[in-house]
Parts: sequence; C-alpha cells; structure tokens
Amino acid sequence: MEKRNNKNSFSPETIKRLSLYLRNLRRLKEQDIDIISSRKLTTFLNVTPDQFRKDLSFFGGFGKRGVGYNVEKLTKEIENILGVDKERSIAIVGIGKLGSALLGFEGFSKFNIKIASAFDVNKDKVGKEKKGVKIDHIKYMRDIVKKNNIKIAIVSTPPEVAQEVAEGLVSSGIKGILNFAPIVLKVPPTVSVSNVDMACELESLIFLAKRRQKNSGVKR
Amino acid sequence: MEKRNNKNSFSPETIKRLSLYLRNLRRLKEQDIDIISSRKLTTFLNVTPDQFRKDLSFFGGFGKRGVGYNVEKLTKEIENILGVDKERSIAIVGIGKLGSALLGFEGFSKFNIKIASAFDVNKDKVGKEKKGVKIDHIKYMRDIVKKNNIKIAIVSTPPEVAQEVAEGLVSSGIKGILNFAPIVLKVPPTVSVSNVDMACELESLIFLAKRRQKNSGVKR
Repeated sequence: MEKRNNKNSFSPETIKRLSLYLRNLRRLKEQDIDIISSRKLTTFLNVTPDQFRKDLSFFGGFGKRGVGYNVEKLTKEIENILGVDKERSIAIVGIGKLGSALLGFEGFSKFNIKIASAFDVNKDKVGKEKKGVKIDHIKYMRDIVKKNNIKIAIVSTPPEVAQEVAEGLVSSGIKGILNFAPIVLKVPPTVSVSNVDMACELESLIFLAKRRQKNSGVKR
Repeated sequence: MEKRNNKNSFSPETIKRLSLYLRNLRRLKEQDIDIISSRKLTTFLNVTPDQFRKDLSFFGGFGKRGVGYNVEKLTKEIENILGVDKERSIAIVGIGKLGSALLGFEGFSKFNIKIASAFDVNKDKVGKEKKGVKIDHIKYMRDIVKKNNIKIAIVSTPPEVAQEVAEGLVSSGIKGILNFAPIVLKVPPTVSVSNVDMACELESLIFLAKRRQKNSGVKR
C-alpha cells in the first residue's frame, strides 16, 4: 500500500534486524529515553546507520537524519510492521521437558505473544493445566487451532512424530512453525519454518573451533 | 589428512545436518537398534539419501550402499568429525534468568558439553555456586578461560555489555560464541558466532504469516 519501496527486496535478515531494533527500543523506553539518534542506536547494536535506515526504508521513511527517532513512535511503527502490535495467540505441540519450559517462559508476554493452546498425547498430561494453559489431546488440535484462528505454532515433540504434527498444523491453517524437533520439517512453500536447536548450534561451533585450531597449527 | 574430499566445499548446513544425524543415531542406540539403512534414517529426517551420503563423503566414506550403517560406529565417527567425541568444557557469561536456565539445562551433558565456568558481575551471585558451577567475577574471565583452554562460550548478558564481553572472550582464545544477547556481535573472522533468539524467530514468523495472509487476500 502506502509509500513502500522495493516491497520484495528485503531479506529475512532485515526482518530479524527489525526485531532486534524493536527489542532494544523497548529497553530504551523502560529506561525513560524518549529520543535516540540512529547513530546511538546502531553503534550499540553493531549495525551501521546506513543499514538501519535501509531496513526502515522498505516500509516507508521514519524519522529524519540528524533529528533522532522518537522511541515510542518508532517502537509502535516497527511493532506494526512485524504484526506484533497486538497480542498474538500461538499453539504449542509436545509438552515434554522442553515444551513445559516454553509454557513457563515469561519472555513471550513481553513480545505480545501468548501461548493459547497446548497439545500432547500423554494421558497424564491431557486435560490438566500447566502454567495456566490447558493441555488438550492432539486429536483435537486441528479443530482448536482452526477455531481460534491460530497462525503460529511451536513444535516440541519427539522427532519421530514431528513431521506428522507439522502436516496437521499446516492443514489447520498454521503459517509459521518454530521447530525444536531435530528433524528437517517438510512444509509447503506458503508456510515458514524456523529451527531452534541449541545443541546443533553448539556442535557446529565446536566443529568450527576445532577446525580453526587445526588450521592455525599448520600456519607458517 | 586422510581420505577427505573437497575439504572446503561443505557448507555450514552440512555440519548442522551431521549434528541432526548424530542426535538421531543416539536415539536409535537408546532404542537398541544396531543397524539402520540410509533410507530409513533419512526418510525419517526428511533428508534425501543422496544428501546424507554426500554429507558423509566430505569426511571419508562410511558404510556401504544397501548394507546399512552400524549405528554405534557411525555415531562415533560423526562425534569424531564434529569434535564432540570427548567432553568439551564451555564457559557462560551472564547468569541472569536465561543464564541460570542454561546452567540447569540437562541436555548439555547428553552432547558431551559441560559448563565449566560461569561469570557475572552481580555481587549477590559472584562466589556462589549454581547447579554445581561456581560463578566467578567477570574480571577473572580472561585468566580462567585461558587457563582452562576453553574455546566455546555462551553470552547471555544484557545487550549493552555483550560486545565488550565478546571482545574479552576473543582475547582469551575463544573460537566460538553462542550469543543470546539481542545485538549483532562483531568478532574477527577466525571466531564463529551463532545467534539464538527465540523472540526474533517468532517475530519473523509472525511477519511472514501476516504477509502471506495479506497476499493470499489479494490473490485473484
């Protein structure tokens, strides 16, 4: 609509940086800072002012060079761009150790995210409440997700069932999956998947560290 | 050294998939499965058998087509490739809510990772033990990290101090950083950074979901 440039030329990195800016604008607001220069905000985040302005330019121009940004206004604008300006209900499937920890994660509310539905198959869990969220049997997942118009889900099931769960979610209208199961989820191109896998990240770092030590050992 | 092909042509994705294979091989072992066909292992993970063989081929050939893989042997070989065949000590800096949760995360030991050192600046925390790990003042970080030859660190500090902490870690010989602080860390090219940011992933998913709904709304 309005004054958007190159609507399709921003990368996923742009969106991640917007999320970073947002997080830090919220922190500034908590510290009662009303106005911030792009230089100050970006230096602190290790992003160049040019990158910052470019990221914002995809969604229209905000603020003026040299004048600084109104923290509250820019916060609202970025919230609006990302679609996190109002509370967003998400679902979680798989209430094991990790799923339980996520149910209890206080950080979500800070980001206007509310876990509204939780699913599992374990009869000791189904029907009970955990951290204020009722756990339903997974056989009701499609109905509940559809009825509540939930678009984002967390998958924290064992890997063996994760693909089946993802397919159920997709057929219920889910458009984004945050995947904690250690498999590569196959979804249609209209659905996005983000993988969170700390062990995987750590093992990659260990591999790279080992490799670099080896290479530096043969350096002349 | 040995029979490695195209030593430099594998991507970070190869390493992440090796970590995935490893995780699932360990699960198979727990289930007392001794031999697995590449087809079975890969179907389950949604990776093609060709991809699987290609990923392994960078590090020498393992197993034979049609014969299947010895689960224990392949586990050890991948552990060896990744450098997680023996326990690896890592450090963590910033023992707030997230840092404390990470200190208590049981999953690390499963991956041969041990948090050996923890650092903070808060005088209520320094000198105490948490989950069996002593918290030292950050001013001793360089000495302790160097002395213990730690190469991997987790940064879970507030964003304002994360860059400074990262620089301290790099000068102590750290080669890989798992960064939970919401900033872009600047490190030399000889150091790797992986960012874990659930809020950022979720906000990206929300943005993409919103955008897709909008686009599908104007579809003719």
